[in-house]
Amino acid sequence: MRIFPISLCLAWLLAAFSSRAGDGPVEQWSVFELKLTGPATGNPFVDVQLSARFTLGETTVAVTGFYDGDGIYRLRFMPGQPGIWHYQTTCNIPSLNDVAGTLTVQPPRPGNHGPVRVAHMYHFAYADGTPYKPLGTTCYAWTQQGPELEAATLATLAASPFNKLRMCVFPKRYDWNTNEPPLYPFAGHATNHWDFTRFNPAYFQHLEHRIQDLQHLGIEADVILFHPYDDGHWGFDRMPASADDLYLHYVTARLASLRNVWWSLANEYDFMKEKKDSDFVRFGEIISREDPYHHLISIHNGQLMFNHTLPWITHVSIQNGSAVEDAGRAELFRDVYRKPVVFDEVKYEGNLPRRWGNLSAEELVFRFWEGTVAGTYVGHGETYLSPDNIIWWSKGGALKGHSPARLAFLKKVLDDSPAAGLDPIDKWQNPSIAGQASAYYLIYLGKQTPKSWEFLLPKPPLATNQVPVEGMQFTADVLDTWNMTIIPVPGHFTLHKKDNYTYADQAGRAITLPGRPYMAIRLKRVSE
Amino acid sequence: MRIFPISLCLAWLLAAFSSRAGDGPVEQWSVFELKLTGPATGNPFVDVQLSARFTLGETTVAVTGFYDGDGIYRLRFMPGQPGIWHYQTTCNIPSLNDVAGTLTVQPPRPGNHGPVRVAHMYHFAYADGTPYKPLGTTCYAWTQQGPELEAATLATLAASPFNKLRMCVFPKRYDWNTNEPPLYPFAGHATNHWDFTRFNPAYFQHLEHRIQDLQHLGIEADVILFHPYDDGHWGFDRMPASADDLYLHYVTARLASLRNVWWSLANEYDFMKEKKDSDFVRFGEIISREDPYHHLISIHNGQLMFNHTLPWITHVSIQNGSAVEDAGRAELFRDVYRKPVVFDEVKYEGNLPRRWGNLSAEELVFRFWEGTVAGTYVGHGETYLSPDNIIWWSKGGALKGHSPARLAFLKKVLDDSPAAGLDPIDKWQNPSIAGQASAYYLIYLGKQTPKSWEFLLPKPPLATNQVPVEGMQFTADVLDTWNMTIIPVPGHFTLHKKDNYTYADQAGRAITLPGRPYMAIRLKRVSE
Repeated sequence: MRIFPISLCLAWLLAAFSSRAGDGPVEQWSVFELKLTGPATGNPFVDVQLSARFTLGETTVAVTGFYDGDGIYRLRFMPGQPGIWHYQTTCNIPSLNDVAGTLTVQPPRPGNHGPVRVAHMYHFAYADGTPYKPLGTTCYAWTQQGPELEAATLATLAASPFNKLRMCVFPKRYDWNTNEPPLYPFAGHATNHWDFTRFNPAYFQHLEHRIQDLQHLGIEADVILFHPYDDGHWGFDRMPASADDLYLHYVTARLASLRNVWWSLANEYDFMKEKKDSDFVRFGEIISREDPYHHLISIHNGQLMFNHTLPWITHVSIQNGSAVEDAGRAELFRDVYRKPVVFDEVKYEGNLPRRWGNLSAEELVFRFWEGTVAGTYVGHGETYLSPDNIIWWSKGGALKGHSPARLAFLKKVLDDSPAAGLDPIDKWQNPSIAGQASAYYLIYLGKQTPKSWEFLLPKPPLATNQVPVEGMQFTADVLDTWNMTIIPVPGHFTLHKKDNYTYADQAGRAITLPGRPYMAIRLKRVSE
Repeated sequence: MRIFPISLCLAWLLAAFSSRAGDGPVEQWSVFELKLTGPATGNPFVDVQLSARFTLGETTVAVTGFYDGDGIYRLRFMPGQPGIWHYQTTCNIPSLNDVAGTLTVQPPRPGNHGPVRVAHMYHFAYADGTPYKPLGTTCYAWTQQGPELEAATLATLAASPFNKLRMCVFPKRYDWNTNEPPLYPFAGHATNHWDFTRFNPAYFQHLEHRIQDLQHLGIEADVILFHPYDDGHWGFDRMPASADDLYLHYVTARLASLRNVWWSLANEYDFMKEKKDSDFVRFGEIISREDPYHHLISIHNGQLMFNHTLPWITHVSIQNGSAVEDAGRAELFRDVYRKPVVFDEVKYEGNLPRRWGNLSAEELVFRFWEGTVAGTYVGHGETYLSPDNIIWWSKGGALKGHSPARLAFLKKVLDDSPAAGLDPIDKWQNPSIAGQASAYYLIYLGKQTPKSWEFLLPKPPLATNQVPVEGMQFTADVLDTWNMTIIPVPGHFTLHKKDNYTYADQAGRAITLPGRPYMAIRLKRVSE
């Protein structure tokens, strides 16, 4: 567990975007910010077109600037390589045009692995190659709850296993979450007649500080750009297309330089009745065109899956209430999309009078393991009723459930698993066996309560060169995924080809099990 | 069951394409054929570009002609409306150019419902609106087995419940199926050095006669255009792109006028190692551009799903060895594609020493029912070893298994089900309940063996206006899907809203069950 003093969290609020021109060298994958002063009259959000080109050798990165209020303009750049970069601005305002300079970029410091990318088709890795195995949670409206509760949320996250957080840009209004936010994203609050051409810089400054807070905890921010939990109350769910597009342009200019940003075009996109699928396609095209770093992009559904085969969608974000009850269901989405599959919403641990919000901790942990051995990733959420209406899934605060400790145990297992990820080995016969053939196997027994498990490995998937061979040796561990124990099995198991489809132990050994549910078996090849 | 004298089958062989110019009126959705005589020298397959436009009022259909050997050219047209159509040819050979005439089209006779189309997003109907509920089987190479065995196959089909047949255009070479075909599709047999620019008309004449034989049995022909079961033996799996395209052009010109044709671009497309996904996209684009009637198009996979979101793919043809073990798996594909889902291969009933070919009849019938209550369709295949190597799945002949009788029972249930199809009612909670909310419910209990079923209906899907209402009345039947019995439950069940998610019987009644597996319950609303 990470140790996270609350004072540190407040310090980060003040220290965001400290890398500025003239401040000395900038770290790779951190933010270089060029602050310029220009006109404060008219509507600088739409009147001023500011951009810059950052160049190092053959590499050129085009970056869009933004207006931050009070005559301040900013250009933010996340350098992807060390070296001396040159930059030069372009602007329709002469005083902001042709501003040029250099910055020195140094290699990243320990703990900075860069943005997360897709790796091995179904998995993720940071830009420096370090595997990233998502274990996400959800606090949709945590950044709109005021400093005290927001600090508490950060402290809870710091002590948690979670390394991804789903969070909305816009305020949220829904059952158990009807408080007005401290700030609003647009000018015009008093009347609720927003001026969608004028952003409220304070709103976005606060948001980006919170994303940086997460970054310092090693947590990816899965930034949700639109959602239906407004229902016309503020109307941010039904802005005109021109306002949607301007908003995406502004958010991309402000946030794209933060290495831990992921773009989630919407939550429950199909519940936004004022929008069509084609609107979200346009949003995705805008973001993928304007984000110079190509952060991960996806979109989360209610009842209807989005077309995740579109080329700019990097991974599949899914809500499904039953797919991860069974690895054999979950893995079907891998076959369909050939992209990483993240079940961001699978119902929540809690006790709400809603079917989507009253899973037991045992059931949620079970679902994580089924998803894991399907070669997919699962997200957490918690919905325990509370007299103060502070429910983790919406506002953050404290975690009350019993799944997070078990998910920390799962994270330990994931961190110890192959860098290439866990893939189904023999998907149409044994959906509960994942790993990398002939090297590592994770077998999850779910709700079954056997007293023993016969050592039997399936043949590998087609088109692999990792074929098991007679005589290969494996160690075995028995994992109790609920009681969080790992007990090694004495001795080695030695492969013997039993038939066309299976490999057994030469001595025909089995592994003794306690007859409890939620057990797993881990096999690792003994290195030669 | 249909009665099918073998003599009739042979008669059809001779009677194909009897509607010719001057023969009097043509039936809607049957074939009008214009036979012309032209040059037999050079290479008429590529030298002559023959087409015609058929016009009725505002409707114009462009039809491609083809060379049928011996100086004979043919243009085939399937009229979609009654009336007097005019036609006029275009050709680069003057004697075939500007041939004009009329044909009188009469309404279809009973039993002719036109081609099958997609209906209600996830289902099918004939062009005249009659529901079509696919219950398919597979005889990949049946048209290459000689007249005796082919006649036997037709007789078996006539006595079977099947209304769709998967069959290959090209000959097949695979385990248990290594005989050479009587004919070859291209010129050049003696040397196995084919001339891919010269087709063998006799090969295609035979194929289209067989498709017409199926049409007269009310069976849709799922015509597989490419497959990997050649492995270079003849090389039809690895022709150059120009030959592939010419072949598709020729097949479309010959077959598209047959109303029972479906296009399956390939079987196990991903096992065709000489082809890329982009080749199959090109094939689909060619077919959908050149087929003037827009017959159904799909493509069947081995291990990797094709991108069935492409707009010209009308329905999803899937091989999956485990998806229909569980309705909760099968229905996920509906969510993904929003198209009809047909599991054309789910392993076969049989006793082959292969995992894909040794299901019990019970298991295959179980899979059909799981797929059915998932709102999808399942395909049959049979692989019982035989000393003469005549296995239904490849060569046809006789059916030996125990599933077809039970599939006939399923067909009876399907024929009695709503025209709008069976859709999941409450997919994330009760994957085994399908129907049309508030009108018809089919509940499949699979391998469970309960002694009773409490009358409990789930809330309907979002976005339906078919909401159950207090006091609605239902009749119930108990179906034994293996023993093929339907036993009505006495009296009516009257709806009472139990909670936010369920409706019970006002009297709290349950339905008594025999404690055997494979039971289903059918509920029908009592009309008011």
